[in-house]
Order: sequence, then C-alpha cells, then structure tokens
Amino acid sequence: MRFHEQVEVHGHLMDTGVLARVLDDVLAYGGDYRVDKIDLGRTHDDESHAVVTVGAESASRLARILMRVQVHGVNKLVPGEARMCVADADGVFPEDFYSTTNLETVVHLDGQWVPVEHPEMDCGLIVSGGRVRTVPVADVRAGDVIVCGIDGVKVVLPVSDHSTRLHGEFASMSTFSSTAAQPQAVLVKAIARQIREVKAEGYQVLWVAGRAVVSTGASRALTALVEAGYVDVLFGGNALATLDLERALFGSALGLGSPHSRRVQRGNEQHIRTVNTIRRAGSIRAAVESGLVTKGVMHAMVKAGKSFVLVGSVRDDGPLPDVHTDVVAGQRAMRAALRGVGFTVMVATTLHSVATGNILPASVPVACVDTNPSIVSGLTDRTSAQALGVVADAGLFLEQLATELVPDYRT
Amino acid sequence: MRFHEQVEVHGHLMDTGVLARVLDDVLAYGGDYRVDKIDLGRTHDDESHAVVTVGAESASRLARILMRVQVHGVNKLVPGEARMCVADADGVFPEDFYSTTNLETVVHLDGQWVPVEHPEMDCGLIVSGGRVRTVPVADVRAGDVIVCGIDGVKVVLPVSDHSTRLHGEFASMSTFSSTAAQPQAVLVKAIARQIREVKAEGYQVLWVAGRAVVSTGASRALTALVEAGYVDVLFGGNALATLDLERALFGSALGLGSPHSRRVQRGNEQHIRTVNTIRRAGSIRAAVESGLVTKGVMHAMVKAGKSFVLVGSVRDDGPLPDVHTDVVAGQRAMRAALRGVGFTVMVATTLHSVATGNILPASVPVACVDTNPSIVSGLTDRTSAQALGVVADAGLFLEQLATELVPDYRT
Amino acid sequence: MRFHEQVEVHGHLMDTGVLARVLDDVLAYGGDYRVDKIDLGRTHDDESHAVVTVGAESASRLARILMRVQVHGVNKLVPGEARMCVADADGVFPEDFYSTTNLETVVHLDGQWVPVEHPEMDCGLIVSGGRVRTVPVADVRAGDVIVCGIDGVKVVLPVSDHSTRLHGEFASMSTFSSTAAQPQAVLVKAIARQIREVKAEGYQVLWVAGRAVVSTGASRALTALVEAGYVDVLFGGNALATLDLERALFGSALGLGSPHSRRVQRGNEQHIRTVNTIRRAGSIRAAVESGLVTKGVMHAMVKAGKSFVLVGSVRDDGPLPDVHTDVVAGQRAMRAALRGVGFTVMVATTLHSVATGNILPASVPVACVDTNPSIVSGLTDRTSAQALGVVADAGLFLEQLATELVPDYRT
Amino acid sequence: MRFHEQVEVHGHLMDTGVLARVLDDVLAYGGDYRVDKIDLGRTHDDESHAVVTVGAESASRLARILMRVQVHGVNKLVPGEARMCVADADGVFPEDFYSTTNLETVVHLDGQWVPVEHPEMDCGLIVSGGRVRTVPVADVRAGDVIVCGIDGVKVVLPVSDHSTRLHGEFASMSTFSSTAAQPQAVLVKAIARQIREVKAEGYQVLWVAGRAVVSTGASRALTALVEAGYVDVLFGGNALATLDLERALFGSALGLGSPHSRRVQRGNEQHIRTVNTIRRAGSIRAAVESGLVTKGVMHAMVKAGKSFVLVGSVRDDGPLPDVHTDVVAGQRAMRAALRGVGFTVMVATTLHSVATGNILPASVPVACVDTNPSIVSGLTDRTSAQALGVVADAGLFLEQLATELVPDYRT
Repeated sequence: MRFHEQVEVHGHLMDTGVLARVLDDVLAYGGDYRVDKIDLGRTHDDESHAVVTVGAESASRLARILMRVQVHGVNKLVPGEARMCVADADGVFPEDFYSTTNLETVVHLDGQWVPVEHPEMDCGLIVSGGRVRTVPVADVRAGDVIVCGIDGVKVVLPVSDHSTRLHGEFASMSTFSSTAAQPQAVLVKAIARQIREVKAEGYQVLWVAGRAVVSTGASRALTALVEAGYVDVLFGGNALATLDLERALFGSALGLGSPHSRRVQRGNEQHIRTVNTIRRAGSIRAAVESGLVTKGVMHAMVKAGKSFVLVGSVRDDGPLPDVHTDVVAGQRAMRAALRGVGFTVMVATTLHSVATGNILPASVPVACVDTNPSIVSGLTDRTSAQALGVVADAGLFLEQLATELVPDYRT
Repeated sequence: MRFHEQVEVHGHLMDTGVLARVLDDVLAYGGDYRVDKIDLGRTHDDESHAVVTVGAESASRLARILMRVQVHGVNKLVPGEARMCVADADGVFPEDFYSTTNLETVVHLDGQWVPVEHPEMDCGLIVSGGRVRTVPVADVRAGDVIVCGIDGVKVVLPVSDHSTRLHGEFASMSTFSSTAAQPQAVLVKAIARQIREVKAEGYQVLWVAGRAVVSTGASRALTALVEAGYVDVLFGGNALATLDLERALFGSALGLGSPHSRRVQRGNEQHIRTVNTIRRAGSIRAAVESGLVTKGVMHAMVKAGKSFVLVGSVRDDGPLPDVHTDVVAGQRAMRAALRGVGFTVMVATTLHSVATGNILPASVPVACVDTNPSIVSGLTDRTSAQALGVVADAGLFLEQLATELVPDYRT
Repeated sequence: MRFHEQVEVHGHLMDTGVLARVLDDVLAYGGDYRVDKIDLGRTHDDESHAVVTVGAESASRLARILMRVQVHGVNKLVPGEARMCVADADGVFPEDFYSTTNLETVVHLDGQWVPVEHPEMDCGLIVSGGRVRTVPVADVRAGDVIVCGIDGVKVVLPVSDHSTRLHGEFASMSTFSSTAAQPQAVLVKAIARQIREVKAEGYQVLWVAGRAVVSTGASRALTALVEAGYVDVLFGGNALATLDLERALFGSALGLGSPHSRRVQRGNEQHIRTVNTIRRAGSIRAAVESGLVTKGVMHAMVKAGKSFVLVGSVRDDGPLPDVHTDVVAGQRAMRAALRGVGFTVMVATTLHSVATGNILPASVPVACVDTNPSIVSGLTDRTSAQALGVVADAGLFLEQLATELVPDYRT
Repeated sequence: MRFHEQVEVHGHLMDTGVLARVLDDVLAYGGDYRVDKIDLGRTHDDESHAVVTVGAESASRLARILMRVQVHGVNKLVPGEARMCVADADGVFPEDFYSTTNLETVVHLDGQWVPVEHPEMDCGLIVSGGRVRTVPVADVRAGDVIVCGIDGVKVVLPVSDHSTRLHGEFASMSTFSSTAAQPQAVLVKAIARQIREVKAEGYQVLWVAGRAVVSTGASRALTALVEAGYVDVLFGGNALATLDLERALFGSALGLGSPHSRRVQRGNEQHIRTVNTIRRAGSIRAAVESGLVTKGVMHAMVKAGKSFVLVGSVRDDGPLPDVHTDVVAGQRAMRAALRGVGFTVMVATTLHSVATGNILPASVPVACVDTNPSIVSGLTDRTSAQALGVVADAGLFLEQLATELVPDYRT
C-alpha cells in the first residue's frame, strides 16, 4: 500500500470488540492494516491501547478510511493541523469534507484543540471566529469555511466525565440485549431513577413519542408525567398530536385502539375534522387557550409551558398548523430544542426516534421502548453511548413509569 | 345436490359474521346452500335466527359438512337420534365418528338430551351407562361405543348463562383486536377484576406460563400471586421450572435475560447441573421439602399445596423428574387438572397455550398475554368464547397484575 | 332520537360483515338504529339490500354518523341535493364540510349526478364550473365552494365495472389473510399475471419501494423490471435512492445488508458523501446523464424516461436534491403522478405505502409485500378494495417476480 | 483467590470477541482473572493466542468456571489426566460431572488423547472400553463410568479441517446478521451450492421443517427436492405430517393457509379425521404402500426410502402413529439419524430446530430460515459454528431453492 498512517485507540478493546470492527472496516473500504502495538492491561478494569498502521492505494481512500474508523474512536497518532476549504455552492460540501461522528470531537486550529459545538453525526464542520460547529449539508452556504480531510480532527470516546454523571445502574443495564427476555420491571425502575437524577442536576428530559402512546390509553400516564415536570421537550408527529386532540375534542369513539381498529378504513371523518378544527383555531396553543381543548397530553404541555416540535411526514392528513411540513426545517427546530437535554426517552415511534438519534450527541443517554425487538436494538445500536432498550408496550411502560415517578398516581 | 338437510343457527348473526363463515365453509367442502329464512331482529339487542338448506353430492360429504359447520353453532333443524358404532381397534375411531367442538354439546339418546361431559374439541364422543363424554383418539379402546355421524348431536353457543357470570367489562373488552395499539393498563385492571370475581365464586384460576416469566424477572410477581392464592393450577414446560429452580439454586448468573443472552451458547452447564440436582433429589417437591430449594415460583407452588403439570418437549434438556416426557400422558394430566377451573391466564408460551386451548371448553374465559401480536390473535381466535388478548411483555404485565391484586406488593 | 334518516346499502352483506360494522359505528358515534328491511338473497351469488333508520340527538351528529357510515358504502335512501358553503380561510374547511371516502362518489348538483374526479379519502369536495373534485385541507383556499353535510352525496361500492377488469384469480386471492402461512409462490404468480394484464390494457404500474429493496440485493431484479417496462412510476424516500446511488458510486462496502449492518453507527461517511456528490451534480438525472451514475434502479428509471417521486422524512440525511423536503408538496407531486395508474405494488416500506394508500382511489388494486404480518394486514385493510397482502421479504419476492415477468432474467 | 488455574485459547480473538466473553463469564460466575500473555498477530490472517489465569474461592467453583469457559474453546494450559466417577443412580450424573459442549472434544485417558464420539452439548461423558462418548442425563445408568471435573478434557475450536470442506462463500455469508435487510436471493444460491457440494462429498442433508412448509404451498417444492435426492433425513412434528397427509387425502379445503386461516376454530374435523385414517392404516408407510396416500412430502419420502423422525408435542392432536409421543425417545431417534449428516436446513419451526441444534455437533453447518428475525438469530447463535440465517418465508425460499437445485422445476 502506497499511502499509510498510524492510528491509535484507547478503551476497553476486548470488551467492546471495537478493534475487530476497526480492522473489518479497513478491509471493507479496500485498505489494509498492521497491528503495531497492543496493550490490553491485565485485569478487568485496565484500559487498553492499540496502535495500528492503516494503508491504502490512494491518499483520498486513506482519508476516507480514517474518517470511517473514527466512528469507533480511532484517531491519527499524529493528528496534525486541520485543513480548511471554502464551500463553493449553497447546500454542497467541498469534495473531501470531513464527515462527522456524534462523538465529542476536537479540532486542531492554530495549535489549539478547539471543541466542536454540539456534536452530530453525518455533518460537516464549519469554522468561524475561532469556533467550530457541526453543519448539516442542507445548511452549508457558499463561502462557509469547512474542515476538509481528517488532519487535525480527533474524537473522544465517551468514557470519562459523562459516565460518572450516569446512574451506575443505568449504565450497567445498557448492556442488556434487546429481547423480550428482559427484566422489564427492573429496567423501568432504573429509568425512573435516572430521570430523577438527571432532573436534579438541572438537565432537561426529552421525550420522543409515537401515536401508540395515545392509542394504548397511556395519555393519562404521560399527562401525569408532564404535569409532574418530567417532560421538558416533546418530539413527535402529526398523528400523535391529532389523536390526542381528537380524544380531547370527541372522545375515543373511533380512534385507533378501539375494537374497530383493524377494520377497513376508507376515510376517517373524525380525524380530519379534528385537524380542521385546530387549523381553524390557528394553533394547538390557541385551541388550548381558547378553552376548545381541555385535556390530554398536548393540553398539559401547553399549560406547563413546555416546548414541543412536531414534524410532518408524507402520510400525514392535514396536517395540524403546528406541524413542520418541511422536514429540513423540522430538523432545525429539533436541533434548537436539544440544548440542555440530559436524557431522552423514545417510546413507540421508529421514524421520530431515528430522526432524534441522528442529531443527538453520543453523550446523551437514551431509553428506547418498543414492542418490536428489532426496532429496539436498531435504535440502541445507532444512537447514544448509553442506550437502554426496553422491549415493552407503551401502555404498561408509561403506567409503570408514572407509578414510579408521580406521587399518588395510582390513587 | 342429491343429499340435503335443513340447519339452523341462533345468535347475533350480523355482529359476528358467523353466517358468512358457515356459508363459506359449505362451499369449501364442496357443498351448496340456500337460505330459507332469516330473521335479524330490528335493534342491536335482538337475537337473530336463520334456517339454511345445505346440500352435497353424497351422504358422507353432507355429514362432514354438517359437523364442520357445527363449530359455528349450527345445528340440524330436526336433529334426530344419535347413532352409535363400536370401535374396532385401540386408538382408532370408527370411520364416520362424530368429531367434537369445544362448545357445550348435547346428545339425543333414547329420547333424552344428554349433556356431554367436559366438552373438548377434536375428540370423539363415548357413550357409556347413559352418559356421554369426550375421548381423544389416543384413548379410545376397542369395544368403546362411539357416536357416529351428526344425527342427534346439538351444540349450544356460549351466550346465555355463562356470560352473565362474566364481568361485563371483560366480556366487552374481548372484542378488542390484538394489536400493539391497545389500552393495556385498562386491560390488566379488567383481568384483575375478573380473577377476583372468579375466585369469589369458588372457581379456580389456571395459569399457563412460559420461561419468559422467569427470564423477564417476573418470578417475584408470579410468586406473590401464588402466595396470595391467585394461582390454583400451573401448566408449563421443563424450561420454566428449570430456569426458576436454577435461579433458586445458583442465582441468575448466566440465565436467559442476562446481558449474555444473545451470545453463542455451545452448552450451559448451570442449566443441566440444575436438572441433575433435582433429578438426584427425586422431584421438585422433594427438593423443596429437603430445604434445597428455598425460593421462586415452584417453591411457592409446593408450599401453597397447589398443583402443577409440566409437560416435556423435544427441545428439553434432562428433563426434570416432574416433567411428563410422554406428551399424550401429559395431555391426560392436564385434562385431569382442569376440573373447577373458571379462568385461564396464558403468559409468554405458544406451545403450552395452544395445548391448553385444545382441551379447554369454550365456556372458560381466557386472557392471553404475549409480545407478538400474531401469537395473541392466533390464541384468542382458537380458544375460548371469551378470550382477551393482551399484546404486552410478561414482565410488565405480571408486575402490573401483582400491583392490582396483591396488597402491599409494591412496598 | 329526535333526528333520523333512512339509509340503504347493497352488496354481499353477509360475506363482508359490512352491516355489523355500520351498526357498530352508529352506536360508537352515539346514535341508534332500526333495521327496516333486509333482503339477503338465497344463494351465494345473490346481492343483498338493507334499509336502516339511523337516529341521533342532534342534526349535526346525525350528519356525522351518515358521513362515517358512507365508508361502508351506505347512502341516504333519499339523497337530496348537495349543499355548498364558501371556505372563509386558506387551508381550512367550513365547519360541516363533507369528508370524503376513497370510493367512487357522485354529487347531486342541479338535478344531475356529477362524478367526483379522483376519489381520495379524508378530503373535501370542491365544486367549480359544474365539476366536483377532491381537495385536501391544506389546499383549500378562501372563496372555494365546498360541499357541506351529507345531502346529495352518494358513494358506489367497487363491485361492478372495475372488478371485471381484475384478473379473477387476483380478486379471489385478496381474501387471503395476511399471515406467514400463505402460498407465497402462488401469490407472486398471480401478481405477475395481474401486472401483465393491466399493462396490456394500457394502464400504468405504480411501485412504492423501501430501502430494503436495495439492501436485500433486490436492485438487480427491480432494475430488470424497470428495463422490461413494468415500473411506470416509482414512489419512495431519500434512503431508497441514496442507498441505490451509494452502491452505484462506491459499491456496497458498508451499506445496510452488509455483515456490519447491526453494528454501532455513529456516522456513515459514505452515505452522506453520496448525498453530497449528487447535490453537487444538481439532480439524479444530471448525475446519470453526466455519466457519474451508471447502474442501479434510479439509473434505469432515468434511462427509461419513467417518473419517480421522492418525498423526504424527518430522519433523512441530506437529502438528495430530488427529494421533496416539504411533505405537503410531496403529496401533491404524488397525486399528480397517479393518473393512469391501474395497479400498485408496495414493497418494504410502511411510511410511503400508507402515504400512497391515503391518496389512491379504492378502485386501484394493490399488492402489499412486507415481512411483518401486522404491516401487511394494516396496509391491505386501509387501501384498495382489491388488496393482496404478501408476507414475504423483498429480496425473494422481487427475484421471483422478475423470474416470472422478465424473459431470460435467470440466465 | 485461593484456587487458580492457567487457561489458554487460540484463534481469531479480536474478530470474534471471544476473549471478552470468556472474561465476562469468569466474573459472572464469581471468579477473577489476570491476562498473562496475549499475542494477537499483526495482520488479518494471523491467529492469536492468549493465556489467562482464572481464580475462584473454592475448587468446585473454579471447576465450574473452567467448564463454562470451555464453550468458548478455552482449555487448561496443563490439562492433566481425566478423572472418572461411577454413576450411583439411573438418570442422574455424579455431582461434579463434566458438562459437555458441542465442540470437538478429546479426553486424556492413560496418557492418550481420545476423541469424544458424537459431540453434543449439555451431556456427560461416558467412558467404556477405552472409548468416550456423550450421554444425555436421561440415558445414564447406575454403574456407568462418567468423566468428572475438567481435568484431562480439551475442546477444539472448529477452524481447521471441517471449514475447508465448507464452500468458502457459505462460510463468509454466515457472518451476515439476521435481519430483513439481507441479500436473500444471494443467500439461497449459496445454500444451493453448499448442498450440492456436501452431497458430492457423500454427506447427507438433514431437513428440519415446520408445518408452514405445507401451509405456504411449498410442499410442491419440497417434494421436488426429496425426489431429486436433496432430502436424506427429515425431522418434524405431528402438524407437518398431518397437514401434508390431509392435503393428500382431502385437498386443501380448510387447512391453514386458506382464506379461512384466521377464523375461529372450535374444532377441525378434517384434521382429526386425517389422523384417524392414518392410525387405522397403521403407519404413514402403510398408508403410502396401500395407495391411500398418493402425493405430498411424506409420500415422496417413503417412496424414496428416506428416513424421517417425527416427535410429538403437547399441542398435538392424535397424534399420527409414526410420531414419538415420548420426547426423550424422540430425541434418541433423532440422534440415531444424525450419522453421516453434513448439512442441515431448518425451515419454519422453532421447536424442532432448537431440538436439533441441541444434539448437533458444532461441526455441521446449518442454514436457518424463518420470517421472524429474532428466531433466526436465536437459532444461528446457538447451534453450528457455521450457521447462516435467512429471514424469509418458507414459501419463496423453497420455491427459489427448488428452482436452483431441481432441473426443469419451473417448467
């Protein structure tokens, strides 16, 4: 191989199997490697350290390999200085832009290691006024200064400071595999403790919820959690809010979860009438403040002054006036709502959970709840460094969590 | 069609779609029909009544059609007298034996309508000393007198007396379709009320449980339910009991549900050592009485003097000495334990739930709990006339049910 | 009940259970009913006819009940003349707008029955120049003339002319329930025959495809179907097109479906680099025409001059320049592409399949393919009057379909 | 730790993560460890080697730890001589019996390394006449000489000779994770090639099949594979054979897979009548030879003189006379049929697949096919060292495989 570079990785290499993945990725990208040095420690708590030489046939392929393996926390042994290019068009990165991970990242600029603000995966890095922040491709503008290549960029594996903030029990449980054979009741208690602790430290709790929260009758539990202050931000879609408002306006007559739910539907007048009524009111907030909507999850969020971001999808009816119909604008609104978030609960939605995972830093712990084991493991694998998957239905999960967190919930 | 017969059916024909199924089944068996009379009533509570002529090319085909449609509660308009044949070999019915449903059934013998004892589907009817009872094919003996053909056999749809015993709420909830979009917390409360009521009326509660009950950490909840007297009979397999005993003997080190559960297993010494230890003790009861086993579900069952039937399967290790290795003998033991059962809860096992559904009369209400919607709807469709499916994980379901039924469970 | 109205319904009432649903819906909406007349016919092929009086406590509730039950094909016995109101704001219907079904619908205007153009569920009806067409709530403008209430609106159950166009076998198979226990190979052959026939009659075939089509390696089969002329329109999302283009640009190194697919991903530089490359090119078409992209499904669509509509979602990276980021604009583009479509195949995408089902008339037959039985039955229940669900993986389904339809595919 | 022992492991330690699992298992059993030496090699193809000291508080705990980690291929550095005890009761092992893995194993007896005959997990080792073979706990008899403790027992990881027999492509594909996002068509081709190769080398092909093979209409494909000589042994249950025979006797009228499959069943006269008919005939073979059964899978097996083992379960109706009702006897019959098997295909049955996995040596490659990803990954994790999971429905899988393997199948 004509081009090569030494890289290093720290951490519990044996435990995590990370080195095997690094080496596989190198081969998959058409590169090659040689393990130069490996120190695994002798006991369970020892950290390990490896140095590997990675080679490729071209400099550009080598650069791509080095970016790829950074998702595993692998850095160049001699990082060098960051190289910058200027974007030549709106919405397009320079050819060899540095593609980010969601790990804590630092960039070597003028001899200083500058931390990247709000780490987010699959973005570029924009440099401006001595600061570095992530920028998604849709938001780059001609003239922006973008980090190119791998030089001068280091990632930090999320081991040290953040994990001490984590409830030890939660951290250890995140190693549970996501199968139906989990001690769910124990997991719910661990999540409750984690939420209490995160709130006590002044962080916010973000919820990402699907419509099953309403259709499983868990609105009562979620509403209680909102009122008790355990829901600071809510991400969801048009269906969640519409079903919740439909129940507030009309009762549950023909909603999902009724005995009718599997029957043929060639139209749902109650659903679209709900949307129309809120459109006429102008917004969910207006509908609450005018007294039109007097109960439910959205009502509680408005009354508690908490923020929610609803982003549309192609299957939406209407949608509600509060829904971002432009998904890129919706992503921007979600990013803006992430500041201060110290814990995330994802319940019964794949679409919005993946979307949230895409923009969350790896340092924020996540609990993912779904009845489908494949969805749970997909979500926990992709997102946080501390992700706890729970294979459970939204209904009993929220009932149990409210019982743990909200005094007098069961009375 | 050369051969034909008038049949009739009563009940909420429009609601249940039963007439459509009857007519479909007639066509599927190669017969034909003509609707002679139909009275649907005018309001929701009116019962309906239909008379249909069914035709076929041969008498034997006509007889088979008439037996088939009896699963829908359809009887001959003029039933006639029962015809009997003598079995000519052990374990074999006469050629044209009457094949049973699990509905209440009466047989016309010497001008009297004799009720069938313990209705069970897919059996024959044995007549002896003026009484009629179901007999599975494996248990028929040469010389037994068996009802043949459809003449003189009527089934009774489970509407009248039993349903009044049912908690009204439970009955209405059994119309919920089995999807993840159910109000699970409400369903659990309804099941709790139903169990309390059934116990108050002196009936027994049968549980059919899979090993996930242990691996989800729900042993504590199930043990509490046993101690509180809500588990009179337990059906299960070798895995349920072995996992429970393994935890009692060794703790949960490497059982399912541990972080290791998805890893490669080329052997499980702790599991097989548990089996061997109980085999050495002679039985589960002996292991409990000798003080070897001091906790867990099986321990609680023995201490409470309740009965359990464990039936083996081809994937068992060992098995435990209490396990019926002959499945036909196991079915007999299960049948013997059904007397007095007024409610059945099936949790996290397809194999034993189907087996139980096969031998239960349609008059016993059932709650089926599983994380897989297809399994839940399969079970509720097959078994009781009052089956409530809950798509939920065993862990949260049992935690919730114990919270409802067992005082001070959560403290 | 103070307000009441006679309604009627034709069709195979016993077979379809439709009358039970109608009566249930009336009760669920708080109304009441009385069956005035029912004629079920005597044999299997006879049509039935029922007249029912529906009552409610208020005129507005009665109107809503009547709209609701129209999804089952139930019309007022004396329809009367349509009533119209003027929309008073953009994007909001008048309070008592008529909410559409996706059935063929006619509106009584000035003594004439005017057919509704492009039936679509959950829309309003706009009247202009003596014509009537559906309009979604987002597209209504102040001043538009909108049909209000149920008077003068009749739906037609999809029995007569269209079904004769359907391959008889396909029609009969659409009664198969969507379980894993289906004769899949037979179903694929029926779909192939149906596609050939629909094309022969000059209709177009619409495909709705998820990214699993690429990740299961079925691109080769789908590409062959495009080249053979069996894919006239393609609906999908950013992931489908990006994965397809990623394979065209970089091979399949680290895409989904590789041995790596379940591993931790904290970023995917190849995926986002693909998006950036196409954004630089300006469009998928430009990337194909410039020779940058030389293979794959999107390449084949461009080369064949076929149209595709890609609509974004909140979880998208990028997205590609061709993707509609505004979902309402995306829905409009999808509607515009539906003209001439006579058959729809939905493969391995819930989001886009539901979105397509939302805007399709009930008269277009649909085949839904997914590995998850719940998704398949959900889709087939909601959409077409002739929907065939196939529980199968995209890979083998497309391989099999290409083998049936494309000469020399297997060689 | 008072008791300790040095162990060693060879192989691709980084790739497989095996060392991490070993160390985890040591801790989970309450032991401790120290890594004494580790040599990972420098390039991808280099083997690695590690020496670890394992400690525990008691000799018996240490012995159990050492047995446990042998499932990962870890042996004592200084194995010593095997120790033997005499079983003191039928069906019970001595207290500290050696619990087997399914790996190739050798036992040090009188200074010789004696290979264990037919490796099978969760058994004991019986020594007799200088030979060593596995014995399940149910089959041990008082007086049998059983290996106790870990001394003198070594396992061999399945890398060397057998894997060379494997089609290289198959081996590499077995690293695919079992998700719906697999290149199924490619996997089927690889399985076809593997079957051809294994047959060419004189090995037998074992099939384990569930009833979905019949209910998906795949009987035709499986029958063709039997006739073409690709099914040497068939394992299954009562349902598979009964459904197959029911179709042969009566056609498919009301079997699963018909439009009726999800409907209420309170009895199935056709099913039980089939069982009764075969019971009257005496056996499946007798029913075939007498001309009663003239088609289907079982007919083809009998005609081709191939062997099948049907083992009963508690949910069986009947069962058929050929079904082993005693599951331990059934396991013995399955073991006896394994000789000469070089490849196993498991299709659409969890129960019988797990049962087969329990008794198969790790050296036999396996292909597992099911629509449920959780089942596929559970099976592939547990059984062979070379297991390829395919998430697909039985119907299209078998159609595709028959197309590959049977000349003129599609014509």
